[in-house]
This record gives sequence, structure tokens and C-alpha cells, in this order.
Amino acid sequence: MKQQLTVIKIGGNIIDNPTELTQFLSDFSKIEGYKVLVHGGGKSATKMAQSVGLTPKMVDGRRITDAPMLDIAVMIYAGQINKNVVAELQANGTNAVGFTGADGNLILSEKRNHPTIDYGFVGDVKKINTPLLQKLIELDITPVFCAITHDKNGQLLNTNADTIASELAIGLSEVFEVTLNYCFEKPGVLYDAEDDSSVIAQIDSPLYAKLKDEGAIHSGMIPKLDNCFNSLSKGVQKIKIGHHKMLKNADAVCTTIQL
Amino acid sequence: MKQQLTVIKIGGNIIDNPTELTQFLSDFSKIEGYKVLVHGGGKSATKMAQSVGLTPKMVDGRRITDAPMLDIAVMIYAGQINKNVVAELQANGTNAVGFTGADGNLILSEKRNHPTIDYGFVGDVKKINTPLLQKLIELDITPVFCAITHDKNGQLLNTNADTIASELAIGLSEVFEVTLNYCFEKPGVLYDAEDDSSVIAQIDSPLYAKLKDEGAIHSGMIPKLDNCFNSLSKGVQKIKIGHHKMLKNADAVCTTIQL
Repeated sequence: MKQQLTVIKIGGNIIDNPTELTQFLSDFSKIEGYKVLVHGGGKSATKMAQSVGLTPKMVDGRRITDAPMLDIAVMIYAGQINKNVVAELQANGTNAVGFTGADGNLILSEKRNHPTIDYGFVGDVKKINTPLLQKLIELDITPVFCAITHDKNGQLLNTNADTIASELAIGLSEVFEVTLNYCFEKPGVLYDAEDDSSVIAQIDSPLYAKLKDEGAIHSGMIPKLDNCFNSLSKGVQKIKIGHHKMLKNADAVCTTIQL
Repeated sequence: MKQQLTVIKIGGNIIDNPTELTQFLSDFSKIEGYKVLVHGGGKSATKMAQSVGLTPKMVDGRRITDAPMLDIAVMIYAGQINKNVVAELQANGTNAVGFTGADGNLILSEKRNHPTIDYGFVGDVKKINTPLLQKLIELDITPVFCAITHDKNGQLLNTNADTIASELAIGLSEVFEVTLNYCFEKPGVLYDAEDDSSVIAQIDSPLYAKLKDEGAIHSGMIPKLDNCFNSLSKGVQKIKIGHHKMLKNADAVCTTIQL
């Protein structure tokens, strides 16, 4: 029987709030069994870019990553955020190791080749190095991934953190029974974005299609849920979306996704 | 019989020169057997500090690391430099993984407590996690260390890269037969600092004492050689100091240190 493994993705709302981050990392350390953390970037890359005179460009909610912006992303995501998270997890007794996709060739990507938009140094995940990742996890290492990958030709690439979480969950589901948790600022997927009490407890494929038709689910939530259904169809056992307090309280409101 | 392992430390002169770095990483990839890379910082941390309005402070050739300066060091050393080196080694077919001392608790330090100088967030190495490092190396991972460690209480610490190289070499000599190589801009330890042809081929303890008395060895070279003799007395097999071309050419001039 496969062993349980939990992949948890946290976003900028936790990264940008030191008190929230400390609480989360303490809760994360108490989760039993194998686990993997994936973190987004938060606002510090944008702040750092501004302080050195760069103007971040966005298209369709995605950062256009030119060479100077990639440099900042690598510094902030792989350096500042990743290593401080690792140090704090170590203080909590979790044997964390921080990774980009370049480390151990754990996440191989290819530079996005879009017909009309030049995204710059943005990578789409091609392959997870499941055999090495499994060995590291079985050494009781807790991998902490930032949203930087590589192309195996020496180029680092900025990559969507939600996608990294789902691709890692898919890759690891070959050898573990994987639960994927997306933690964000809301208590779950909301029927009415303005009403935090409108959490949808369960979403399956037919309901997802209906909610998109009704316009209840739109913009940033669509790629997130597309990732979820993709992950479930490729072997991930269970996906939960909600506030990170769902991790320590099994009764907390959240959204569970199933096929 | 113990297996061979080579620890190589490179300094700012290689890090700051992209052509030199690319050549070095190609040569490094061709070294046979287990190996560990340790890299210094170069000038980019100072440049970045300046571009965000910080003024680096130095005492006795050591950077005083206040909190904003530590932040920059973590970004540049553990982020920018470390991850680009890892990506380039991957392109060369070396399965590199980048580490700070916080990752896997591989290098535990304590914040320096100096009677008269407040060095800030500077760490002195206390303990190498040899068992985990050995397991990683035996997975055919090539560790790439930057000069950042931690105190296991959540605090990252700036640490001298030469010391990290020597402490890693000492720790690993428990389980491997370790050669330690310090690569810098000169062909070796020079009798006359102005004359690159005055390389001292071999230095042992009595000669080292004599050279210090004569004033031929002074300033930055003293802590480097102190580290060497400390490493040799604690189990490291052999130490070489010289230009990185000594790595691919066994006949190249360099200085060998022995007890």
C-alpha cells in the first residue's frame, strides 16, 4: 500500500504576513507523515523590482519575466523567501530542504512559446524527477519548493506555483497516496466572491462546468481549478482549497475537489 | 577503504566573471568521483546593497552583517548565485543541488559573540550534518553550498565561505578520503605577493610559522592557511591552493599544504 503524502501550496497572503507565516509553519510542522511545501512569491519581488528601478509587466494576471525580472524572482523566491521558510521549519523540528526545479533536476520545464505573447523567462513544467524526489522524501527530508524551474540548458525559468504544486502532486502520486492542499486567503471556493460564508463544500466536474457557465467561478480561480481537475485525472487522490487553518482543524470549512 | 571526495571552494574572482565561471563549471563537471562545491559571494551583494541604498560596513576585511545586509546576502548568495550555478552544472550533466546550511540542517552555526565588535548576523560553524550529507552524496547528488548557515532557531547567518569549505571537508573526512581545493585568482600561495612566479609549492607547519615571521604571508592569507592546517589536523587528506586551472591540469603550478 502506498504511503500518505500531503502537498501544500501557500500563496502570497501568507508569505507577506510574518505572523501568519509563523503560525502556518508551526501548523505545517505538526502535520504527520510525508509532506511537501510549495510557496508562491508574494509582494516582495515587485517591491524589490521597484526599489532597483524595474517596472513589472503583467499580461492576463501573469508576470512578464524579462531577464532583470527573472533575476529578482530568483533572488526573492529561491533566496529570501525559500531560505527563511526552511530556517523557520528547521526551528520547528521539520527537516526542510529548499529547492528550485534546477536542484537535482527535480522539475524540468520548457520556456513558454506563446503565439502572440512573449512571456519572457517563464517555464511550463515538462517532467518531475519522481525517483529522486521519492528518495529524498524517504530520507525524511521535507522538500520546500519555490516557483523557479529550469530547462536543463542552464536557464532558470519563472513558473506558476499552483502548477508546480499540481505537477509535483501528480508526479508523487505514482509512488505515494497524495492529498493536495491549496491554501489561500479565503475559506474555500466561494459561490459569491463577496460572501465568505458562500463556500462550496464540494466541486465535481459537472458542477465546475455549471459554475463556470453561471460566471460564479472566473478569472484567477479558473486556472487553479483546471489544475485541480488535471491533477485528479492523473492520480492525485484528493484536493482541498481553503484557508490554511483547515490544516490543523479537520472540521474547518473548505472546498473539496473530486472528479 | 574510504571513497575519494573533492571539496572545491571558489571565490569572487570566478563568480564575478561569467566566462571564467562557465569554464570552471565545465571543468568541475569533469572531475571524477564524489565532489562538493562551495562558492563565495563576489561583488554582486555589495552592488545590490548599493542599488537599494545600503552602505556595506567592513571591519578587519569582514562584512558587518546587519539585518538588511543579511537579507541581501541571502538573496544573492543562496538565490542568484547558487541557483544559476546549479542550473549551469545541470546543463553540464552534473546532478547539482544547492544548499545553505539551513537546508537539511547541514551546517549549524552560532551567532558570533565578539567582545568588542558586533559582527551582526555572522555565524561561526558548530556542526556539519555528516550523516545526511553522506546520504545525499551517495545518491550521486553534487552539493553546492553558498556561505549562508543557520542557528536552528530560525535565524539565517552569513558565514565565511573558506571556513564552510574547511568545516565541510573535516566533517566529510569521517566517511570519505577528502581533498580540499581553494581556487582563487593567483596560481598559489606567493612568497612575493607582487610576483606570480613565486608560488610556494609546498607549505608545512614549520615553514608556515617561518613565512608568517618573515611577513611573506599576511592579511587575508592567514585565516585561509589557518583553516587549512586546522582541516589537516582534523582528518582532511590533502589541500591545494591555486588557480582553478589546477583542477584540469595535474601539472599546473599550485601550493600543496601538509602538516
